[in-house]
Amino acid sequence: MTKRIAILGASGYAGGELIRLADEHPDMEIVYLGAHTKAGSTLGAVHPHLMGAERALGPNDPDEIDDVDMAFLALPHGASAEPAMALLDKGVRVADLGSDFRLDSVDRYEAAYGSPHPFPGELGRWPYGLPELFRGDVAGADRVAVPGCYPTSALLALGPLHGAGLLEGGPYVVDSVSGVSGAGRGAKENLMYGAVDEGVAAYGVLTHRHRPEMEQGLGAVGRGEPKVMFTPHLVPMQRGILSTCYAPAASGVLAADIVAALHAAYGASPFVDVVAEPPNTRWVVGTNRALINAYLDPRTRSVIVVAAIDNLLKGAAGQAIQCANLMFGLEETAGLPMAGWMP
Amino acid sequence: MTKRIAILGASGYAGGELIRLADEHPDMEIVYLGAHTKAGSTLGAVHPHLMGAERALGPNDPDEIDDVDMAFLALPHGASAEPAMALLDKGVRVADLGSDFRLDSVDRYEAAYGSPHPFPGELGRWPYGLPELFRGDVAGADRVAVPGCYPTSALLALGPLHGAGLLEGGPYVVDSVSGVSGAGRGAKENLMYGAVDEGVAAYGVLTHRHRPEMEQGLGAVGRGEPKVMFTPHLVPMQRGILSTCYAPAASGVLAADIVAALHAAYGASPFVDVVAEPPNTRWVVGTNRALINAYLDPRTRSVIVVAAIDNLLKGAAGQAIQCANLMFGLEETAGLPMAGWMP
Amino acid sequence: MTKRIAILGASGYAGGELIRLADEHPDMEIVYLGAHTKAGSTLGAVHPHLMGAERALGPNDPDEIDDVDMAFLALPHGASAEPAMALLDKGVRVADLGSDFRLDSVDRYEAAYGSPHPFPGELGRWPYGLPELFRGDVAGADRVAVPGCYPTSALLALGPLHGAGLLEGGPYVVDSVSGVSGAGRGAKENLMYGAVDEGVAAYGVLTHRHRPEMEQGLGAVGRGEPKVMFTPHLVPMQRGILSTCYAPAASGVLAADIVAALHAAYGASPFVDVVAEPPNTRWVVGTNRALINAYLDPRTRSVIVVAAIDNLLKGAAGQAIQCANLMFGLEETAGLPMAGWMP
Amino acid sequence: MTKRIAILGASGYAGGELIRLADEHPDMEIVYLGAHTKAGSTLGAVHPHLMGAERALGPNDPDEIDDVDMAFLALPHGASAEPAMALLDKGVRVADLGSDFRLDSVDRYEAAYGSPHPFPGELGRWPYGLPELFRGDVAGADRVAVPGCYPTSALLALGPLHGAGLLEGGPYVVDSVSGVSGAGRGAKENLMYGAVDEGVAAYGVLTHRHRPEMEQGLGAVGRGEPKVMFTPHLVPMQRGILSTCYAPAASGVLAADIVAALHAAYGASPFVDVVAEPPNTRWVVGTNRALINAYLDPRTRSVIVVAAIDNLLKGAAGQAIQCANLMFGLEETAGLPMAGWMP
Repeated sequence: MTKRIAILGASGYAGGELIRLADEHPDMEIVYLGAHTKAGSTLGAVHPHLMGAERALGPNDPDEIDDVDMAFLALPHGASAEPAMALLDKGVRVADLGSDFRLDSVDRYEAAYGSPHPFPGELGRWPYGLPELFRGDVAGADRVAVPGCYPTSALLALGPLHGAGLLEGGPYVVDSVSGVSGAGRGAKENLMYGAVDEGVAAYGVLTHRHRPEMEQGLGAVGRGEPKVMFTPHLVPMQRGILSTCYAPAASGVLAADIVAALHAAYGASPFVDVVAEPPNTRWVVGTNRALINAYLDPRTRSVIVVAAIDNLLKGAAGQAIQCANLMFGLEETAGLPMAGWMP
Repeated sequence: MTKRIAILGASGYAGGELIRLADEHPDMEIVYLGAHTKAGSTLGAVHPHLMGAERALGPNDPDEIDDVDMAFLALPHGASAEPAMALLDKGVRVADLGSDFRLDSVDRYEAAYGSPHPFPGELGRWPYGLPELFRGDVAGADRVAVPGCYPTSALLALGPLHGAGLLEGGPYVVDSVSGVSGAGRGAKENLMYGAVDEGVAAYGVLTHRHRPEMEQGLGAVGRGEPKVMFTPHLVPMQRGILSTCYAPAASGVLAADIVAALHAAYGASPFVDVVAEPPNTRWVVGTNRALINAYLDPRTRSVIVVAAIDNLLKGAAGQAIQCANLMFGLEETAGLPMAGWMP
Repeated sequence: MTKRIAILGASGYAGGELIRLADEHPDMEIVYLGAHTKAGSTLGAVHPHLMGAERALGPNDPDEIDDVDMAFLALPHGASAEPAMALLDKGVRVADLGSDFRLDSVDRYEAAYGSPHPFPGELGRWPYGLPELFRGDVAGADRVAVPGCYPTSALLALGPLHGAGLLEGGPYVVDSVSGVSGAGRGAKENLMYGAVDEGVAAYGVLTHRHRPEMEQGLGAVGRGEPKVMFTPHLVPMQRGILSTCYAPAASGVLAADIVAALHAAYGASPFVDVVAEPPNTRWVVGTNRALINAYLDPRTRSVIVVAAIDNLLKGAAGQAIQCANLMFGLEETAGLPMAGWMP
Repeated sequence: MTKRIAILGASGYAGGELIRLADEHPDMEIVYLGAHTKAGSTLGAVHPHLMGAERALGPNDPDEIDDVDMAFLALPHGASAEPAMALLDKGVRVADLGSDFRLDSVDRYEAAYGSPHPFPGELGRWPYGLPELFRGDVAGADRVAVPGCYPTSALLALGPLHGAGLLEGGPYVVDSVSGVSGAGRGAKENLMYGAVDEGVAAYGVLTHRHRPEMEQGLGAVGRGEPKVMFTPHLVPMQRGILSTCYAPAASGVLAADIVAALHAAYGASPFVDVVAEPPNTRWVVGTNRALINAYLDPRTRSVIVVAAIDNLLKGAAGQAIQCANLMFGLEETAGLPMAGWMP
């Protein structure tokens, strides 16, 4: 039976992708679109590339949402918690694309965000929506915290190796580059074309809030929680994250062990492929796929793993739909694109 | 019943889009992929963004193709004619994305290409595959010449107005900008990233072979054949054509007449929308759509029409699939994307 | 003797280029930098690519400026008039990069801007600072209205031909593409990287205020004032304008006449070259040069002229310095870059 | 006295920048330009953005070069050795921008390149032309091996810290992104606009030949030779390298020690600035500058250093001119741009 869907934060980049995917999903029907400053607009004014231009955007208000099977929240940090709880109270399943429910303890949350959580009892209750590593938690759940874009790439790269005990010591280095859509759609001087084009810079060095999420995720799959050094960079493209990860190999580990562990981890995962050459983000842009490419450096006994995803799909809207499929008991791949855009 | 499809020229940009679209088409199944220098490769080596990486590319040879309902030819100019005729002889329908069969007379062909046509009797026999203007010719045909990317945009912009007698005199000006994918995938110095990025240039001034195709198309819809001045430009983006067209209004024509004529022309065309503001190519990239925006300049009594398409889709592979749908009697929109990619 | 220079609007793109050029100019010394919202910042905070990061930005206030030989005003429309007049009263020469003093009559000004001019008596008193066409007016002047970027390209393309009587009838078409720096540095949603990248659109169709400036300029060099249709487009690059211009040839004019007239017009102009192939904007980006490439279409008896400039240099800051050189009686080329950036 | 200069490999990107810089250098005069496949062309046909379009390109042949003070060789790997030795024999100083003479021993060379060096006795005789670390070796030398672009960035970032004993253990990680101009100008499918735009990929993982050069350089400034893991990435921009480097801090080292050591190292170096926020490559593009930004991560006791350069200037042609200035006893900064291009 077709699932009735609401999307809050519909006017942003992730919101637009949720609309595009849900519109094309065989088992979903969008019945409500919410926005903040764009409430009152039509969809066509906000996303001229989408169909159904005449659809109206209402407010991001759970009171407007009735008779809905699931709500996707694509809201800024801190804005998800209240509507999420209100919707759950109404019996609506929630996939939160924000960071409000990703961290699993009050300590971790307050260390990352420097403020108390409005519903501390919820921390640790929300399955972490990275199906390839936590599929069992997601299946059938009524609420899911969809991972951040960078942690998705880093955990797909390092999670199975850490979990299998093939890495040892640390810290692990996650050096990532991202297209600008990850920074959102609001007008900011540093995201203007004239500021982004033809230049690259790191940002959030040592302070980016996706780092604790990576450490928590590694701890959840494996043997102890390693420390991560994470440096994100902005590059002049719209979509795509490439994370190049460095970690020490455990004693005796061979290159073949690394590749075998990745193949074993992802053999049943339709969206993740282990590849033999460095992937270009362009090969996955437009899809919900991830490509993983791993090396063992014999000179330094270190493992290098490169992961490529589309930050708006596998790193946000696509993964949210993937989670929703599992929450509803649908086919995991339903409605999710497998072929990319190139050129 | 599922249609069995062959694609020659599968390794190029248009070929890649044909594969992506046919793979997702509810009524098509690809049974043969042909290539020239890439024959012998797998699809994954040539188009790493597509699924079915293990599929083999054979030669661009009609003898390899049997039991096929339709062949799409995405080949360089001059390379289509022989395989097209061989395939037709076998009873295979042909959609030729090249320019071999677009011009309708020996005179026009020789003026444009400076050499005789190998099958002169075929000139004028191939329906011109722009369904919005020539749907009746395409429906049920066994062969179609799929229009060039620039003529598609120019004819969608000016065709209905010329046909309705709203334009008068001339010459018409078609000033177009295109992303680089229109120039093909082969390695050339002038198409390197370092040569294209951050610069714009005109090319083929007065000599581009799409100009005769525009004039022929205008002649076919309307009252006499106007002269066209066509200047294409290359801009640093991958996909998209924007054509800004200028033509003198006929006496007494009002702005409302212009818009009404376009609405009338495209009311039954699912892929063409008449819009009230200048369209960004990005709104149609990834789709088979065209957006048309028209003005009457009272100071000069001239009409300005802007048209935006994705050169690889409505300007090539998408239009070829649209034609194939009509040739087979399928739904015109079957398998064709309506929602775009943005950002 | 070194000229003491003030720059108002120093925090914008044109302001930054004025600083870079004046810093490297053998006969200029910057003694005051003014800004609006960025007043109180250091130069390094605003233009991290420039030297002298510790220099302070003061307000855009003529009262702060003393003992200065010339002021460059790089301010939004409407903001130049008052400081310009105050500075002239102090005996400071003024080069206004804005549009306040470009139009030469109250009628033209009010038609373009829909409001009265604060100093109507000044309209027509300011030399139009396009030295290649109006060098005599600029030399030794105490005030100059530096042309708009699009009119610079269009007038360099068409001015000499119109002036020589080689064009006849009309309207003339000026179809231009520009990089985004022409739209300024302020944060706007439609100028974000995610909105500009990979797309092209027209804007200001029929309404752009550079059109009256083009018509006025053509009238000033030639035989009557033709009507112009002007359509600007934004393309995904930072700098550069390419204008492709179409106009009817006068009776009997030959292609050689066109080229000869351009060579004659620019023989003594160090910054303008007539070239035999369509120029890429990239060939002039970083310089004060313009490249002009012209054709006569025998089929339509029309002239096509393509002009390429760097919108921030020949279209703004470079041309302002060129004017200043002439106003001071310095070498016209002093301090102006002739070699471009590529790649 | 003006130095007479020859440039071999003048048709490439680094060659073009050498021409631009030498043309504007107060003490240099270009007297010979050599090329390989472009020999016989004029400069204007090869570099339309440069002045002196009528200058001829001869062959890359030392026999053509007489009465020259210095030759710059911007040639592919392996092509420098013979002309370099022939020119030295003639008494011509040589700055080799290639990799033929950078490695300091036969062992290192053969490990990196897998083949014997044609002049093994020269290895170790060529000063390594990174003036900030080896100024004394370069000053007055008759031959200099100009460093690779990536090693320049990595050694500027880590060299002073390693040399001062502030780092300990390893391996060091150098994770770099580069614009495409580093890959040269020759037409290759993987460097086409359609292949590079909107995507990022790593390449040469574990195998890039700049890694041994980094290790050698660190060994030369410091206490032992650490192992380096180096991963370069190609990003869609033309110029600029950003290297993000990770290394373990020595025991007891404080964040202030890191910054102090960098300030001490570069206090007398006009082209290197230590900055307090992550630099954008765009702030140095067009200049010979490097910006260094360093952190101590207290959680992992690791040092993170980010370095930004223009790969064609400080990473190639600019550094070569800087070396030449020192070789001739000129001012180190003569003829080298300090203000960048932005936007």
